[in-house]
Amino acid sequence: MALPTITNQELLVERFRSIRDFSLKLCKPLEKEDYVVQPTMDVSPPKWHLAHTTWFFETFLLSPFSKDFKPFNKDYALLFNSYYIAAGERWVRSERGALTRPTVDEVLEYRNYVDQACIEYLVNHQLSDREKYILEVGLNHEQQHQELLLYDIKYILGHNPLFPAYTDVKTKPTSSVGAAGWIEVSEGIYEIGHQGESFCYDNETGIHKVYLHDMEIANQLVTNGEYLEFMQDGGYTSHQYWLSEGWDWVNREQRKAPLYWIREDDAWHHYTLHGLQPLDKDLPVAHISYYEAEAFATWKGYRLPTEFEWEVAARLTEPDIPEYSNFVEDGLFGERVGQGYDFFGNLWEWTSSPYRPYPYFKPDEGALGEYNGKFMINQMVLRGGSYGTSRSHIRHTYRNFFHPHLQWMFSGIRLARYK
Amino acid sequence: MALPTITNQELLVERFRSIRDFSLKLCKPLEKEDYVVQPTMDVSPPKWHLAHTTWFFETFLLSPFSKDFKPFNKDYALLFNSYYIAAGERWVRSERGALTRPTVDEVLEYRNYVDQACIEYLVNHQLSDREKYILEVGLNHEQQHQELLLYDIKYILGHNPLFPAYTDVKTKPTSSVGAAGWIEVSEGIYEIGHQGESFCYDNETGIHKVYLHDMEIANQLVTNGEYLEFMQDGGYTSHQYWLSEGWDWVNREQRKAPLYWIREDDAWHHYTLHGLQPLDKDLPVAHISYYEAEAFATWKGYRLPTEFEWEVAARLTEPDIPEYSNFVEDGLFGERVGQGYDFFGNLWEWTSSPYRPYPYFKPDEGALGEYNGKFMINQMVLRGGSYGTSRSHIRHTYRNFFHPHLQWMFSGIRLARYK
Amino acid sequence: MALPTITNQELLVERFRSIRDFSLKLCKPLEKEDYVVQPTMDVSPPKWHLAHTTWFFETFLLSPFSKDFKPFNKDYALLFNSYYIAAGERWVRSERGALTRPTVDEVLEYRNYVDQACIEYLVNHQLSDREKYILEVGLNHEQQHQELLLYDIKYILGHNPLFPAYTDVKTKPTSSVGAAGWIEVSEGIYEIGHQGESFCYDNETGIHKVYLHDMEIANQLVTNGEYLEFMQDGGYTSHQYWLSEGWDWVNREQRKAPLYWIREDDAWHHYTLHGLQPLDKDLPVAHISYYEAEAFATWKGYRLPTEFEWEVAARLTEPDIPEYSNFVEDGLFGERVGQGYDFFGNLWEWTSSPYRPYPYFKPDEGALGEYNGKFMINQMVLRGGSYGTSRSHIRHTYRNFFHPHLQWMFSGIRLARYK
Amino acid sequence: MALPTITNQELLVERFRSIRDFSLKLCKPLEKEDYVVQPTMDVSPPKWHLAHTTWFFETFLLSPFSKDFKPFNKDYALLFNSYYIAAGERWVRSERGALTRPTVDEVLEYRNYVDQACIEYLVNHQLSDREKYILEVGLNHEQQHQELLLYDIKYILGHNPLFPAYTDVKTKPTSSVGAAGWIEVSEGIYEIGHQGESFCYDNETGIHKVYLHDMEIANQLVTNGEYLEFMQDGGYTSHQYWLSEGWDWVNREQRKAPLYWIREDDAWHHYTLHGLQPLDKDLPVAHISYYEAEAFATWKGYRLPTEFEWEVAARLTEPDIPEYSNFVEDGLFGERVGQGYDFFGNLWEWTSSPYRPYPYFKPDEGALGEYNGKFMINQMVLRGGSYGTSRSHIRHTYRNFFHPHLQWMFSGIRLARYK
Repeated sequence: MALPTITNQELLVERFRSIRDFSLKLCKPLEKEDYVVQPTMDVSPPKWHLAHTTWFFETFLLSPFSKDFKPFNKDYALLFNSYYIAAGERWVRSERGALTRPTVDEVLEYRNYVDQACIEYLVNHQLSDREKYILEVGLNHEQQHQELLLYDIKYILGHNPLFPAYTDVKTKPTSSVGAAGWIEVSEGIYEIGHQGESFCYDNETGIHKVYLHDMEIANQLVTNGEYLEFMQDGGYTSHQYWLSEGWDWVNREQRKAPLYWIREDDAWHHYTLHGLQPLDKDLPVAHISYYEAEAFATWKGYRLPTEFEWEVAARLTEPDIPEYSNFVEDGLFGERVGQGYDFFGNLWEWTSSPYRPYPYFKPDEGALGEYNGKFMINQMVLRGGSYGTSRSHIRHTYRNFFHPHLQWMFSGIRLARYK
Repeated sequence: MALPTITNQELLVERFRSIRDFSLKLCKPLEKEDYVVQPTMDVSPPKWHLAHTTWFFETFLLSPFSKDFKPFNKDYALLFNSYYIAAGERWVRSERGALTRPTVDEVLEYRNYVDQACIEYLVNHQLSDREKYILEVGLNHEQQHQELLLYDIKYILGHNPLFPAYTDVKTKPTSSVGAAGWIEVSEGIYEIGHQGESFCYDNETGIHKVYLHDMEIANQLVTNGEYLEFMQDGGYTSHQYWLSEGWDWVNREQRKAPLYWIREDDAWHHYTLHGLQPLDKDLPVAHISYYEAEAFATWKGYRLPTEFEWEVAARLTEPDIPEYSNFVEDGLFGERVGQGYDFFGNLWEWTSSPYRPYPYFKPDEGALGEYNGKFMINQMVLRGGSYGTSRSHIRHTYRNFFHPHLQWMFSGIRLARYK
Repeated sequence: MALPTITNQELLVERFRSIRDFSLKLCKPLEKEDYVVQPTMDVSPPKWHLAHTTWFFETFLLSPFSKDFKPFNKDYALLFNSYYIAAGERWVRSERGALTRPTVDEVLEYRNYVDQACIEYLVNHQLSDREKYILEVGLNHEQQHQELLLYDIKYILGHNPLFPAYTDVKTKPTSSVGAAGWIEVSEGIYEIGHQGESFCYDNETGIHKVYLHDMEIANQLVTNGEYLEFMQDGGYTSHQYWLSEGWDWVNREQRKAPLYWIREDDAWHHYTLHGLQPLDKDLPVAHISYYEAEAFATWKGYRLPTEFEWEVAARLTEPDIPEYSNFVEDGLFGERVGQGYDFFGNLWEWTSSPYRPYPYFKPDEGALGEYNGKFMINQMVLRGGSYGTSRSHIRHTYRNFFHPHLQWMFSGIRLARYK
Repeated sequence: MALPTITNQELLVERFRSIRDFSLKLCKPLEKEDYVVQPTMDVSPPKWHLAHTTWFFETFLLSPFSKDFKPFNKDYALLFNSYYIAAGERWVRSERGALTRPTVDEVLEYRNYVDQACIEYLVNHQLSDREKYILEVGLNHEQQHQELLLYDIKYILGHNPLFPAYTDVKTKPTSSVGAAGWIEVSEGIYEIGHQGESFCYDNETGIHKVYLHDMEIANQLVTNGEYLEFMQDGGYTSHQYWLSEGWDWVNREQRKAPLYWIREDDAWHHYTLHGLQPLDKDLPVAHISYYEAEAFATWKGYRLPTEFEWEVAARLTEPDIPEYSNFVEDGLFGERVGQGYDFFGNLWEWTSSPYRPYPYFKPDEGALGEYNGKFMINQMVLRGGSYGTSRSHIRHTYRNFFHPHLQWMFSGIRLARYK
C-alpha cells in the first residue's frame, strides 16, 4: 500500500482541521430538520455522515493507537458503523432515518471531542507509517462523505415539493460550450493503476498492462440539450436502445427523464442546488443512471469508454488536475465547471467497465480491507470526479463505482468510439 | 348529527385556545430532530400532526366560511391532507418522514396564523349550527391527534437504542391493585349508541337495540404479571391459543413479548415515557395487539367482551367519567391510572367486535363523511380511552378502532365470560 | 356438537361412495395438465384437492380408529395436510403448484386405497358417535372441496388466454327474471344458530338471541345488467362508494369490472364454465368481492343484510331448501338457478357481518377444532350456497366466509334496507 | 456475422431432425405432470421449452421466408415468445407455470407441424445465407434450451420431497481424480474471439487483443471434498471471504451448502439426476453461485480466472473439443466427466469476468439482436460447457452468462493464480 504524502506535523494538523471543518461548512445552510431524514435507502441523514466520519477516526485511529483515549459514548459504535463487519455490530442501514438522537448538537459535540483527541495525538506522538496511512484513509474517507453529503442534501431538498434552495450564492457559469471534438488514443499496451508514493485507495493498486485498440473519446460531456433530443426521439419508449434490465427499470420506475427534471408550465426545469430552475441546455446532463448513459450512447451510434481508455486519455490530455475555481473547496456549487468540459471536476463519468479487482489487487488488512474489495460486483466504474469532489481528492487513477440504476450522484456521459 | 355543547363565545374561544395549546405542550419535551421522522408507516412525524390539525381548521372551517381568509401557504394543502380524497390531492402517507420542510418553526407560524384567524372568526361571527359542528369536530380531531402524538413520540423515542425518556416528571403510581372480580350484566335488550345533544362522532349514531345474554366482565385490566404467566406457559409458541392470522403474525414478526418489552441483564424491562424501566408486574399490560389479547383470553379460558357488553357494563358501573388526576390534561403521564383499574382512562380495551356501522348509521356530508365510515372493515373496536386520552374527549359510546396486528397504541385487555 | 343424521350402514356406505365419486366426476373434463398448477395463492391444484380430502379420512378416521390400517405412503401426510397444525408438518401452501409428484394416477390409487379401507371399516365395525361425527365432517369437508374444485378449475381455465370450456353440456337457463321486490322482516327478538340433531359445523352452534329492527331484504340477486349500470355511472372511479381498503384494492389491482369480465370487440363478455360468452344481463352478477358488493349497495342507496337478517328472512321465505335441478349433483353447471332468484343455490351472498364466533361457541376438540374458529378474523360471512354447492350440504344456518378482496368464489349480491 | 458450416441439404435435414428429436428424447422420462409447472421464476415448464423452440423456427424462419406457411395457432405467438420485444407481445414470464393449455399432446402436434414445414422448406428451397444463418441460430437455440430443460427438470424433481429420479441409467463414473496441478499461461498479447467460418453467437465476435500477465490455471475442477473443507472451516459463516452482496445473499437465503445438498441421517447427500445419493467427494462441486465460487477461491488463497485467461489456457491445452462419452447426446447423464477434469463438458466454469461486449461487438439485426447484447449487465461469464451441453454446441470462444446468485445451472469452480 502506498505511503501517505504527509511530511510534517503542522501541515498534518492543518490539513486535518481544514478537511474536518469543511464537512461543517457544507452543512451550514441546513435546518436542524434537514439533518435527520433518510428519504430513500441510498441517502443517509446528514447528521449520520457527520457522526460516521467521526466514528471512523475514533475506531481506526484513536481506539487502537491512543492509549488513554476513552470513546465519547460507547453506544455510538453501534449507531455509526456503516458496513465494517469486522468492527462490530451495526444499526441496520435502512433505519438510519429513524434515529432522532443523538441530536445534531450532540453530534457536533462528538465531532469536537474526537477532533481534539486527534489533534492532541497528532501533536504529541510521532506517527508510525500505519498510523499515517490510517489518518490519510480517514481524511479521504471524510472527503468522500462530503460529496455524499451533497448528493444526500440535494436529494432531501429536491424531493420536497417546496423545492428549497441549498445555497443563494450565485455562480456565474460560463455557458459557452467549447467546440465538440474527439481525442485520439492509439492502439498499444498501456500501464494502468496508481504509481508513485502518494496516497491512493487499494482498488487503484495492482499496476498492470492493458491492450487498447485505436479509439477516440469525446472532448466534452453530453449536454442537457443533446439529451433532450434523445428524449424527443422517443428514447424512453424505444426498447432497442436499452439493456434488458435498464428497460425493466424504465418501465417499473416509469422513467421519462433524468432525475430532478420536472415538467412544469409546459417546459422542462431541473432542481439544482440553487432551487428549481429552467433547464439550461448547455450544461452537461447530470443525474444519469448507467442504463440511461448506455441507452443514450447506443441511440447516438457511439459507446461509453472503458475505464482504461478513460485513464489513458485523461493522462494524455490533462497530465495535471486543473485548478478549477468551482471545486467545492471554494464554496461555489455550480452544476458545471468553468471553461470547456474536461476530464476532472465536472461530473463523474460512467465508463463501460464493471468494477472488478485489478490484477494483483490485495485488499488492505483488517476492517479497512472492507473498504473497496467486497463491493466489486454488479457495479460500474465512474471516473474523473464531479463538482462535488474536492480537488485534493481526485486522481487520474481514481475509481468510483455505483450500481447501474442509481441516479442521485453527480454522474454524466462522455462518449467514445472505435476509429 | 348531534349538536355541539358549546353555548357561548368566550367559552368557545377559551376551549379552542386550550385544546390547541395542549398540542404544543405535549411537544415541549421534544428536540427539533424528534419532530421530523417516520420510523414506520403507522407513525407520523410530530410536526406533521401539528400541521395537519391546523390544515383541518383551515380547510373545513376557514376556507369555506370565512370570506376574507387567505391560506397561509397554498402548497400546504397537498402536504397536510391525510386521507380526505374529497379535499384534494395528498402527499403519500409513507413519505411523510421525508419532508424536512416546512421546518418546525414554520409549522408553528402556520399554527399561529390559523389560530389567530379562527379566534378572530369566532369572536366576530355568530356561528351557524354547521360551523359549530365543524369546529367541534376540529377540536375533537385535535384531541385524537394529541393521543396519536403520544403514541408516535413513544415509538420514535422507544425505538432509539439510547432509549431517551420523554418526561422527567415522576408519577407516583399507586401500585396497589384492587381485588380482582367480575361485574354482572343481565340478559335482556339494551339500547346502544349516543343519546342526547352533546357532541359525538357519526360512528356512535344510529341508536339501536341489542340483545345481550347473561355475562360477567372483569372489574380490572389484565396486568403485566398475569401476561408474564401466559408467556412463561408458552403463550407465544402454542398455536392453539391464536387466530390463524395471529399465529402467522407471531411467526413472521418473531414476536415473543408485547411491544416495548426488552430483555436485558436477564430480566424483563419495558420502555415507558419515563425511559427504560424494570417491568412493573402490577401495571396493566399495554401495547397489546388484538391477536395477543384474544390469545391471552383463550389461554385463560375466558374471552373478550363485545363492544355492546362493554358499553352496558361501563354505563352501569361508572355512569360518569371519573375525575382521574392522571389524564394528559394534567401533564402527568403515567402508564397506569389511580385507584383500581376502571373503565376509563387506563388503556383502550380491545373488544371482540369488528368495527362496523350501527344500524341506521349515516356518514357525515362531504369530506367529513370520510372521517369514520370508510374504515369500517378489518378493524376491531376498542373502548374506554387511555391515559393518553383527554377526559373531555371520552364517552361511554366512544368507538375507537385499530387493525388487529397493531401494538403502538395504548391498548390493553379486559376479560369477559358467560355465566 | 350435533350428531350425524346417518342411521344405517348401507345408507352410510352408499352416501360415502356417492360423495367420494362425485369429486372424480367433477374432474372428468380435465386434462392431466389441469390437475397440477396453482396460478395464484388461493387456488389449489385439483390433484391436491383429491389427495387432501383423502388424507382427511386417513388422518382423522382410519389412523386413530382402525387398528390395522397402514397409511398408503407416509410422505403424503406432509404433502396433503392443509392447515391442521396439530396434525403435523405441512408443505407450504404457496408451493402446492410445484409438486408434480405424486402424479394424478398415483393420487387416484391413493383415493382408491383409502376408499376401500373406509368402506371395509364402515361395513365391519359399529361406529361410535365420535366416529360417525368424524365421518360426517369428512363427507362435508369433501363437499366443500368439491365446490373449491369448481372455483379453482374455473380460475385455471379462465385465466388461460385460450379460454377453454370446462363443459359442453348446454344448460338452458330460463332467463326470465322474476319481478323485483322486497321481503319484510319485523322488529323483534330472533333465535340464531343450528337447532336439532342433524349435522352442522361448530361455527353454527351456540344458539342465541339477536334483536332485529324492521327491515326489508330483496327477493332476488343483483343482475349483471344492474351491475353494468353501476360501472357505467363511474362505479370504479368514484371513491365515495368504497371502503378505504376497497378503494386501495381497486387502484392497486386496477379493477374495472368483476372477475372474468372481459372486454372484447367493444362488448362485455364473461368467462363461464362453458367458455367465453357474451355477457347475459339477466344473470346474477357473480365473482364479486365484498368491496364491490358494498360499493354497489352504497351507490344504489341500500345496504347488505346482516347474516342474522339473512337467516331470519330465508327461514321465513323458504323453510325448506328447494329441489332445484341445477345443483351440481345433477351435473348441470349453470351460472344461474331456475325460476326466480331465491336464497339457496344461486351464489353465495355477501352479508355485512364479519365472521366471528357466536355466543357460547366452542370449537371442536383436537385438530378438528382448527376447522373454523381460528379463521374468525378479517373475513365476512356469506350465506345461501351457490350453484356449485351440493344440495345436501347447504342449510339455513350455514356460515361461509371469505376475505373481503376475494373474487374467485361464486359470490353475489342481495340488497337490504331499513324500513 | 460468421456463416454457417452447413454444406448440403441432406446433412442439413438430418441435423435438423436429430437436434429437434433430441429435445423429445430428453423429455421421455417425464410424466405429463412434470411438463407444466414453474416452481421458481428462473425455471420454465418443460412444455414451454418444447413450444418456445418451435415458435422460434416458426417466427424467424417460416413466417418471414416461407410464402405459404400458416401458423399452427395464432394465439401461440403470445404464449411462446420469451423476451423478443421486437417480435410482439409476450405472456409474462412469471406466469408460464399457470398455463395448462395447450396440453403436452397439443404442443407435440405443434412441434410436428412446424418440423414438417421446416423440412419441406429445407428440401424444396435453396436457402439464402441469411436463412442458413437463422436456421443455424434456431438449432443452437434449441440446444441451449435442451440444457435449460435439464436444469429445469432437475429443479422440478429435486425440489419435490419425494426426490424422484430422472433416469435409471446407471453411469459408472470413474471416480479417479487426476493429480491436481497448474497449467501455465505466459505474459503477452493474445487474440480473443471467434475466428473462422463456423457458426458462433454475436457475443463471440469482435476479434481483439488482450494483454495477459503470467499466471497459472488449475488442471481440474474443485471437488465436493474440497468444498466440504471450506464449509467445515466456517465458509458460510465468515464474512471475510464473501463479496458484500454475496454475504447478504447467504444470510437472506440462509445458505449453508450448495444447492441440492441435503443433510440427512447426519450425512451429506446430494440430489442428482439419479435421485438422492450420498455425497461423492471426488465429483466436481456443482450448482455453485458466483458468490460461492469467489468465496471459495478467496478462502483457498487463489482466485477465479478471467474469461480471457480461460480461453487462452483451454486453447493451449485442448485445441480440439474432446470426444467425451458422457455428453448428453449419449444419453448418459452423469454428474461428472470421464477421465480427468478438463475444460469441456464437465460443468460451466465461473470466470471472474463480467459479461460485457467485446470491442467492435455488433448485435445481430432485428429481433435476433436481442439474443445476447441486451443482457450484458450484472452477469458473469462462464466457459467450457457442462455434461448437459451437446458436444456440437460448445466452442473455445463460447460465452455463457448468469447472474451471480444463481445456482440451478450446472456450474462449478476452476481456480487460478498469478505466478
